[in-house]
Amino acid sequence: MQLGMIGLGRMGANIVRRIVRDGNTAVGHERHQGHIDELSAELGDSFQGSTDLKEFVAMLDAPRVVWVMIPAGATGGAIDQLAELLEPGDIIIDGGNSRYHEDIKRAKALAPKGIHYLDVGTSGGVFGLKRGFCLMIGGEAEQVKYLEPLFRSIAPGVEAAPRTPGRTGEPTPAEQGWLHCGPAGAGHFVKMVHNGIEYGAMAAYAEGLNILQHANVGADHGDGEHSAEETPLEHPEYYQYDLDIPDITEVWRRGSVVASWLLDLTASALYADPNLDGFSGRVSDSGEGRWTVDAAIDTAVPVPVLSAALFQRFSSRGEALYADKMLSAMRKAFGGHNELPES
Amino acid sequence: MQLGMIGLGRMGANIVRRIVRDGNTAVGHERHQGHIDELSAELGDSFQGSTDLKEFVAMLDAPRVVWVMIPAGATGGAIDQLAELLEPGDIIIDGGNSRYHEDIKRAKALAPKGIHYLDVGTSGGVFGLKRGFCLMIGGEAEQVKYLEPLFRSIAPGVEAAPRTPGRTGEPTPAEQGWLHCGPAGAGHFVKMVHNGIEYGAMAAYAEGLNILQHANVGADHGDGEHSAEETPLEHPEYYQYDLDIPDITEVWRRGSVVASWLLDLTASALYADPNLDGFSGRVSDSGEGRWTVDAAIDTAVPVPVLSAALFQRFSSRGEALYADKMLSAMRKAFGGHNELPES
Amino acid sequence: MQLGMIGLGRMGANIVRRIVRDGNTAVGHERHQGHIDELSAELGDSFQGSTDLKEFVAMLDAPRVVWVMIPAGATGGAIDQLAELLEPGDIIIDGGNSRYHEDIKRAKALAPKGIHYLDVGTSGGVFGLKRGFCLMIGGEAEQVKYLEPLFRSIAPGVEAAPRTPGRTGEPTPAEQGWLHCGPAGAGHFVKMVHNGIEYGAMAAYAEGLNILQHANVGADHGDGEHSAEETPLEHPEYYQYDLDIPDITEVWRRGSVVASWLLDLTASALYADPNLDGFSGRVSDSGEGRWTVDAAIDTAVPVPVLSAALFQRFSSRGEALYADKMLSAMRKAFGGHNELPES
Amino acid sequence: MQLGMIGLGRMGANIVRRIVRDGNTAVGHERHQGHIDELSAELGDSFQGSTDLKEFVAMLDAPRVVWVMIPAGATGGAIDQLAELLEPGDIIIDGGNSRYHEDIKRAKALAPKGIHYLDVGTSGGVFGLKRGFCLMIGGEAEQVKYLEPLFRSIAPGVEAAPRTPGRTGEPTPAEQGWLHCGPAGAGHFVKMVHNGIEYGAMAAYAEGLNILQHANVGADHGDGEHSAEETPLEHPEYYQYDLDIPDITEVWRRGSVVASWLLDLTASALYADPNLDGFSGRVSDSGEGRWTVDAAIDTAVPVPVLSAALFQRFSSRGEALYADKMLSAMRKAFGGHNELPES
Repeated sequence: MQLGMIGLGRMGANIVRRIVRDGNTAVGHERHQGHIDELSAELGDSFQGSTDLKEFVAMLDAPRVVWVMIPAGATGGAIDQLAELLEPGDIIIDGGNSRYHEDIKRAKALAPKGIHYLDVGTSGGVFGLKRGFCLMIGGEAEQVKYLEPLFRSIAPGVEAAPRTPGRTGEPTPAEQGWLHCGPAGAGHFVKMVHNGIEYGAMAAYAEGLNILQHANVGADHGDGEHSAEETPLEHPEYYQYDLDIPDITEVWRRGSVVASWLLDLTASALYADPNLDGFSGRVSDSGEGRWTVDAAIDTAVPVPVLSAALFQRFSSRGEALYADKMLSAMRKAFGGHNELPES
Repeated sequence: MQLGMIGLGRMGANIVRRIVRDGNTAVGHERHQGHIDELSAELGDSFQGSTDLKEFVAMLDAPRVVWVMIPAGATGGAIDQLAELLEPGDIIIDGGNSRYHEDIKRAKALAPKGIHYLDVGTSGGVFGLKRGFCLMIGGEAEQVKYLEPLFRSIAPGVEAAPRTPGRTGEPTPAEQGWLHCGPAGAGHFVKMVHNGIEYGAMAAYAEGLNILQHANVGADHGDGEHSAEETPLEHPEYYQYDLDIPDITEVWRRGSVVASWLLDLTASALYADPNLDGFSGRVSDSGEGRWTVDAAIDTAVPVPVLSAALFQRFSSRGEALYADKMLSAMRKAFGGHNELPES
Repeated sequence: MQLGMIGLGRMGANIVRRIVRDGNTAVGHERHQGHIDELSAELGDSFQGSTDLKEFVAMLDAPRVVWVMIPAGATGGAIDQLAELLEPGDIIIDGGNSRYHEDIKRAKALAPKGIHYLDVGTSGGVFGLKRGFCLMIGGEAEQVKYLEPLFRSIAPGVEAAPRTPGRTGEPTPAEQGWLHCGPAGAGHFVKMVHNGIEYGAMAAYAEGLNILQHANVGADHGDGEHSAEETPLEHPEYYQYDLDIPDITEVWRRGSVVASWLLDLTASALYADPNLDGFSGRVSDSGEGRWTVDAAIDTAVPVPVLSAALFQRFSSRGEALYADKMLSAMRKAFGGHNELPES
Repeated sequence: MQLGMIGLGRMGANIVRRIVRDGNTAVGHERHQGHIDELSAELGDSFQGSTDLKEFVAMLDAPRVVWVMIPAGATGGAIDQLAELLEPGDIIIDGGNSRYHEDIKRAKALAPKGIHYLDVGTSGGVFGLKRGFCLMIGGEAEQVKYLEPLFRSIAPGVEAAPRTPGRTGEPTPAEQGWLHCGPAGAGHFVKMVHNGIEYGAMAAYAEGLNILQHANVGADHGDGEHSAEETPLEHPEYYQYDLDIPDITEVWRRGSVVASWLLDLTASALYADPNLDGFSGRVSDSGEGRWTVDAAIDTAVPVPVLSAALFQRFSSRGEALYADKMLSAMRKAFGGHNELPES
């Protein structure tokens, strides 16, 4: 089967590599000729590409299958341009991180032209080439069926995890790591919630490890001298542990309830940089976490954990500063309290 | 009636002033002779004092009534010393911010000596002289009854607020601003929860005002250039308000649902310092907010709001930093994401 | 001055009453002739009305001023109909709880017709007649200026609260209880955040009072028999308080830091129904709380408190049930834990 | 090596099985002779036991190693009895879920008798026999070293997970799934935080899946009839997905960022009971989650996520009811709002 790929960044290129590895061919489009040449050198006859969109489309056999794998902000424009060049029966796949609202609108807009549209939430990050990508797919069933060979090559396959007890016989697509979730937008909806969960789980680890990191504060509180603006530690004897956090994340990887791929990565990051000196702690968020909370609010679902994780990221970037100053101003006003100096 | 006061700081001195104003007398104890002299000059024959604890006790008529109004950290020691000098029938009042656990222990320890103990949670801050102090009292009913004249003088009185519909006849103590809440510790327990609520309400205002402060971010987002690490504003046209926050807090003071004394103080602070330039945003917490959440956890009461308010104070002092670095390290590990530079 | 009022429910009728009381006249529009007749009987020549929109408009002098005070869901349609009947120079006021996005769109849509549009966030609830309404206004400055006499009559006036220290001379509009916040939408934006704060403050009280309500759980834990699925109380002696919550809310009304109008109402509700037997605990939310959190997310403002208050309302209506079942399913899966029976 | 085991429940028995499998021997103590007989039948000469504590101790060779694996509530008493029967040089291991405060006290109390004490936080649940147990150990280094052969047998071993990049050579204990975390209490401290993280991660999945479960609410909102007490869905077209949640948890197990052991179990539970009909949603908490938040508060670490997860469990058991009624009472008081009927 043949796949057109717009965007040969890490994820796009790795998807191409995985399908070519299984005997398929690919055509790429990219701004930089260099990226195309590199991939050509690596993949030989199975890959060709062009920096010109029209030429790229011409290289594809009908019905054309074009996977768009570029930053969310640029996706809409790229699809509009592409749609001008495609024909009825062709298929556009948005594999990026678009908001699912866009998918619903795009599928509707493309339908009169006979162009099919699939949204494919793609998880796997920088490890996808080796580990495979988890694919959450929205769109019409017929096109999903048609593209099954490609999805199989891109997804990790059933052997990537032990089968769930009771699941026997021919592995389902879900067991292979790809799933047709529902109509247009369903793929990005499920991917969005996936990322929302990711934010929450990451925060759970980060908060817990932060407690471990503070477990020795009792050792520094021997002197008993405290400002009235500070709550003294009632039991300093309970906080005298100098813990090895890299080793603790390592030990949890085997046999514990919190073992996970995120924990594997955390242990790895801490082994490489035990004090996290390479980080300042300004944590970005890339949209999905926000949209997840928006969706929860729309549907009246309580998400105290997912939202707390999101807000902590905002706070990490200094966005709480005005609120904090306001609190200090109130404390000064009613109690005459002065702020603590930076220690 | 006569009251002994240990600690002539702002709150102790103002309590003395309020009772003397109503015809009672007071005896003070303080480290600094200067504070005693000042108060003597102001109050004349109604007040005398000593820097020597023994002498202070000797100035009191039996049964002695001694109110201890010093920082929580010093209260325990002061009461121990005092107890050595008192006699059966005397009464010790802890008007500070002790944890109510201490009250339970102290009342028990003093009982065999025949010394009575009351814990009096005292709210009112720097405005107490004029506004009166709200008193939440724990201890034996007989002693509370005996001290009623003092509590009446210290509390604001019924005229401080319109009577609750249906409450008629002789105003109850609660309507006058003082209340016998229950046995030893009940006063500080109720005061503790009062402060927990205060943390939550303060945070509600601070967060809301922070949204108002960000209401103009759409005006700065016209260029469309965004890092992949930043979520662009989907509708910049909705965030183009340059709001006058001091005026908004002022308008809410009259007729709105969020009118409150805290809002009065906030409006006042913003009128004096419209941009809060005098504050750095490092917000202290003084124990009660923590103890409130501890009590909630012990009794399985969900307090998502009160705890969020507490944790935001911790974050304001940089205590989330390690967790934030951990999140950045994870994002780097699975997605190759770099942190945003400080803008 | 003359005001047209569409919607003579409690709030609409009370606004009419307040302006008539100050010598203005009003024209009303309502589905039910009965409401119109009642108000006519009460207000005499100062008020007339019609159930027919066209007739209602004909009763107004140009430039017509029409205040729409009906449920948010019906407002859009009513304004569309009204706009067909008005002329250049007329003014429409939306005094309801529309989302401010709508205001921006409506103002834009009405501008070509020469019809002015103001959005007036109106707080005060059922007490507005006596207490006055707090008005947060968005729109063009010229029309706000023109309507000043009406706003003055509707708002509480400066005497409703002590003046903020430092504010002297002629009271500003904000001090009188009405404020021109900014261009179209600014009034509802500020009102929206006001309600978001209200949710947070209400939750702060509710959570704190819930702790007080649980303060006696230690008295029931004497037997020491506990299921392994339940955490026993470590110190039952700390939770033996049988507190009088109506009295506690009453005592806080005078002199304490948490004194507020919400607390006044809470004390009043508890005096009338001390055990809250009249309530089931299913708490509605009416939009503003959700939109406040949406706005915070759009602008990257951390609102852990406001969102927790919102989510608790969702939970109160059973919306967490599926998540809770999921947690039980996980606990069963990894630890063999059974759910606790309903006690 | 020989191990004494007090408590032959699932976890105790499985630990015995794992060490016997590696050529060690075990002596068991249990109330029920039946459990002892069963294990004897299964393990032959490698295992003996007694329902009598004195006899059990007599069966052990000095220095005796006794692992206590019983509910936290009973552990203290059992250790006291045991200590009466042991001799200097013997070792007591608490493998249960004691609060680490107890460990610090016990180690101190046993030291004068020459009895050593280790606290071993043990994770692995019902899968430990096959998967191995993750061991977090507190106590003196010499005894930990001495018991290494047992810990090796109980822990999963390095092959249970891919090695962290950069970790080469002889696998460290942490890589084998057991770790000496620090002095007395450190093992249970780390296990406590582990469980706190577990609560947070579980809640992240549960909240996200709850959003998926609500993704079809737009399909039911076609009629447009809404009470003023309910916020209508602004965009019902965005919530028309009938998602297969068991399949979604399955697809995430391979290649996604949220793959984890907890997710494996969740997928398994949903495969067996797709609608979770077997659960009522009353979620217990067993102490560690509470103690984790307590420790965070003591050390001023913000834990908005871990605490939200804890509080949601409280709410699932109806503990928010009084607070919810209070909110309804306030809404009624200021706005005349009635509660929504149960739908």
